[in-house]
Amino acid sequence: MNGAESLVRTLLAGGVDTCFANPGTSEMHFVAALDRFPAMRSVLGLHETVVTGAADGYGRMKESPAATLLHCGPGLANGLANLHNARKARTPVVNIVGDHATYHVAFNAPLTADTPAIAAPMSHWVHTSTTAAAVAGDAAEAIRQARTTPGNVATLILPADTAWGLAEGAAEPRVIPAAPMPAAERIEQAAALLRSGKRVCLLIADRALMADGLDLAGRITARTGADLMAPTSVRRIQRGAGRVGLERVPYPVDMATARMARYDVVLRVGAASPVAFFAYPNKPSGLLRPDVIDVEVAGVEHDLIGTLVALASAVGADQTAAPVLAHAPTPPPTGALTPDTAAQAVAATLPDHAIVVDEGLTSSRAMALTTAQAPAHDWIQITGGAIGCGLPMALGASIAAPDRPVLCLQADGSGLYCLQTLWTMAREGTPVVVIIFNNRAYKILQGEMTNVGVENPGRVFADLFQLDRPEIQWTDLARGFGVPGERVATAEALTAALIRGYASRAPYLIEAML
Amino acid sequence: MNGAESLVRTLLAGGVDTCFANPGTSEMHFVAALDRFPAMRSVLGLHETVVTGAADGYGRMKESPAATLLHCGPGLANGLANLHNARKARTPVVNIVGDHATYHVAFNAPLTADTPAIAAPMSHWVHTSTTAAAVAGDAAEAIRQARTTPGNVATLILPADTAWGLAEGAAEPRVIPAAPMPAAERIEQAAALLRSGKRVCLLIADRALMADGLDLAGRITARTGADLMAPTSVRRIQRGAGRVGLERVPYPVDMATARMARYDVVLRVGAASPVAFFAYPNKPSGLLRPDVIDVEVAGVEHDLIGTLVALASAVGADQTAAPVLAHAPTPPPTGALTPDTAAQAVAATLPDHAIVVDEGLTSSRAMALTTAQAPAHDWIQITGGAIGCGLPMALGASIAAPDRPVLCLQADGSGLYCLQTLWTMAREGTPVVVIIFNNRAYKILQGEMTNVGVENPGRVFADLFQLDRPEIQWTDLARGFGVPGERVATAEALTAALIRGYASRAPYLIEAML
Repeated sequence: MNGAESLVRTLLAGGVDTCFANPGTSEMHFVAALDRFPAMRSVLGLHETVVTGAADGYGRMKESPAATLLHCGPGLANGLANLHNARKARTPVVNIVGDHATYHVAFNAPLTADTPAIAAPMSHWVHTSTTAAAVAGDAAEAIRQARTTPGNVATLILPADTAWGLAEGAAEPRVIPAAPMPAAERIEQAAALLRSGKRVCLLIADRALMADGLDLAGRITARTGADLMAPTSVRRIQRGAGRVGLERVPYPVDMATARMARYDVVLRVGAASPVAFFAYPNKPSGLLRPDVIDVEVAGVEHDLIGTLVALASAVGADQTAAPVLAHAPTPPPTGALTPDTAAQAVAATLPDHAIVVDEGLTSSRAMALTTAQAPAHDWIQITGGAIGCGLPMALGASIAAPDRPVLCLQADGSGLYCLQTLWTMAREGTPVVVIIFNNRAYKILQGEMTNVGVENPGRVFADLFQLDRPEIQWTDLARGFGVPGERVATAEALTAALIRGYASRAPYLIEAML
Repeated sequence: MNGAESLVRTLLAGGVDTCFANPGTSEMHFVAALDRFPAMRSVLGLHETVVTGAADGYGRMKESPAATLLHCGPGLANGLANLHNARKARTPVVNIVGDHATYHVAFNAPLTADTPAIAAPMSHWVHTSTTAAAVAGDAAEAIRQARTTPGNVATLILPADTAWGLAEGAAEPRVIPAAPMPAAERIEQAAALLRSGKRVCLLIADRALMADGLDLAGRITARTGADLMAPTSVRRIQRGAGRVGLERVPYPVDMATARMARYDVVLRVGAASPVAFFAYPNKPSGLLRPDVIDVEVAGVEHDLIGTLVALASAVGADQTAAPVLAHAPTPPPTGALTPDTAAQAVAATLPDHAIVVDEGLTSSRAMALTTAQAPAHDWIQITGGAIGCGLPMALGASIAAPDRPVLCLQADGSGLYCLQTLWTMAREGTPVVVIIFNNRAYKILQGEMTNVGVENPGRVFADLFQLDRPEIQWTDLARGFGVPGERVATAEALTAALIRGYASRAPYLIEAML
């Protein structure tokens, strides 16, 4: 058995059976090993950003890592942006990155680059195997790292000679350490603050946003009168009918500081203290009141469900009913297509147990409110601000949960970063309905230009933030990649297109002209 | 004046008047400053790989740097692959990368990443400005670094508060150090070896492949009987009718070692010792005979033209006529479209003083030989093995030399890394004719799988190396981005399409079905 085969056997033994891949010559022995193990599903991306973004979407839905297979140096570099999002989301990912054979590096061939240095900024763990015999153990450790709470991006770099050299066999899966509970005093302090009569926000994130965590948090806030919120960017929320609803910290700084100013106390369970996405002259970086009592009850590395169980008990909410939302049908909208009517069309048609992938940016801000009482669904979204994750995450989510309909809310500017994903969707037949919000602009940046004080923008504003010269025809782009679709310009047409798209049980692109 | 304005003024003073850009919020003040200086041309790329690849093509043709304007962290990361090619080509590039305001980094906002660490692997020089007052001097230094022989990738990271803070003014251009001559003994040693009766290869690269360098090298080899060669991957060659022709070191290892085995001596002027692109089991990494006399006469950092002048003089070739090639028209080909007939169609139609950008990989290997006696042209190609550079380099080359026709030879798999470039071509109206060699496969990897010893590839071979499920329609993709084109399946049709494309004096895509 060579190192490559020991890798594939170890991945399968560790429960990693899906590999998003864009390999090159230095990974050829791994490809050959994949070829011998039909239990490993290999999914090709035409660009590494598809590969890493799909691994992110997969890991979020599966709560278990996919592998990626990436080419040395620049290949890995191409995938960094979506690894950044995965890193911020704490999605478990196992990256397998080939590299030049150990003895070949000194020759400084054209593709030679410092692969470990490229991996480091977007990985929680990086390791380079030095011998074929070490590959299996290193792969088992990469899986352990990826699976350790709250989830990590683990990058294993495998020089080509560790693939073709002789290995001893696969490695057994390693024990995943249980997530620890936070110190008991934190829970006591939180319970005391919840009973103090102060205005309290319970801010929850990560694993606490799954249905069981929301149920617990909802009972705590129902019992104590606190408000329940989530951060602006989260990896996944289970929401809709039958779930506890919650508000998110707004993205715009002024809106966020105004919203959060009402709280004397912020109790955080798996959430960081809210901060502005960007700095602006004369605006604060932190979004809470300077005099707020800001308590981390549990960090992402802790057992968040256990923390909420303990906190519910401490405030006497064990028997409290969680305030779950009822299903409230949204009537199909009529008239002009706007972000608001688009949100109504989405809410009116959302299938039961759908997965919504949100990189709609300015066009999807109305969606969360409008779909709050739609049928139960999962919502995953951009976490790290690295645009171009929507389509790949939708692909990966669909491969993780093939029986569920997926809706991808995709801003046009961001979607152009990763449009190659459409081809893999066609290839794999994933039931993903994509709405491209075609506003022919980097709308969010136009707003930011005003925010930084530019009042009369000139030619460069049009040159750098408008996408209408020439107009991009998304339906042509989709057809080029084998994905059918249509262009819609009214709310009625969007509703009809969504129904057609879901019924197709295959990828379908709707270009919504805003 | 704020830091952003001092930057733009310093760039213009230093002769940098073209900015390939994909900015975000942290660069907004720079965009606002660009907006006030019409002398700076801003060209938008829909993905950072377009931006950095265009800067590479521009720098190769202009012999002077363009600026890039990139977004913090993941934005820069998206551009790394084509910076890798630029770094290997020694193309002068000035990257301006925004980042979070200095005081905002500690808040660990979603987009926070280690921007200097991301820049380092693909930059020769990285610096972060710490105050607005420092920006102008730092920008002048970045330009000096980029312009210093043999050309460097210089990356200047500018936190947002250095853009909006108060600056004192622009900085004067700094003196660019002259490239030094190599030690005189090297030239004497080379001259002695050229006269020794041994079989000598004069291997030249970088600046020596421009017409003046080729003329000198041609006189030296004509006088001494040595062979003249260039490396496999070069940043630019001036070739065709009226130029000294030369052979390149072949890409396949076996072919290269066999070809180079005939030499007792290799004299290198600006070239590294030839190495295999990748390591293979039981094949050498170095491509020269173990007993070869391998001499670096001058490194890329030296004055290569001065070196060749001195060497020509030392071997008495001052008066020797350079063996320039005559123009030899190629008859238009007929019949099936193959890499060979495609090369004939290109040679038959190539306009005078065209720029050929080559990322055709397996489909364009016949091109160099077939076009050797076509009208004079420049040839630029992938240098670092990071695929997805062809279309962006063609864009950048066209912007650097707007009066020259550009032909882009683009493999389909590689072209799918950077297809967004087509939109910028349409937007800027660049006269670039693109041939997409659509063989519906990662053909080069199919060959590599055989090279590593896999004889009966299975399902994964089709899953990861075939691009025909579904077939990609490049003409649809081009139309979606506003570029007209056509699909051709015969040699005659390709010839006719090329003539139409050049006549359009605008971007035109030809999908050549191989």
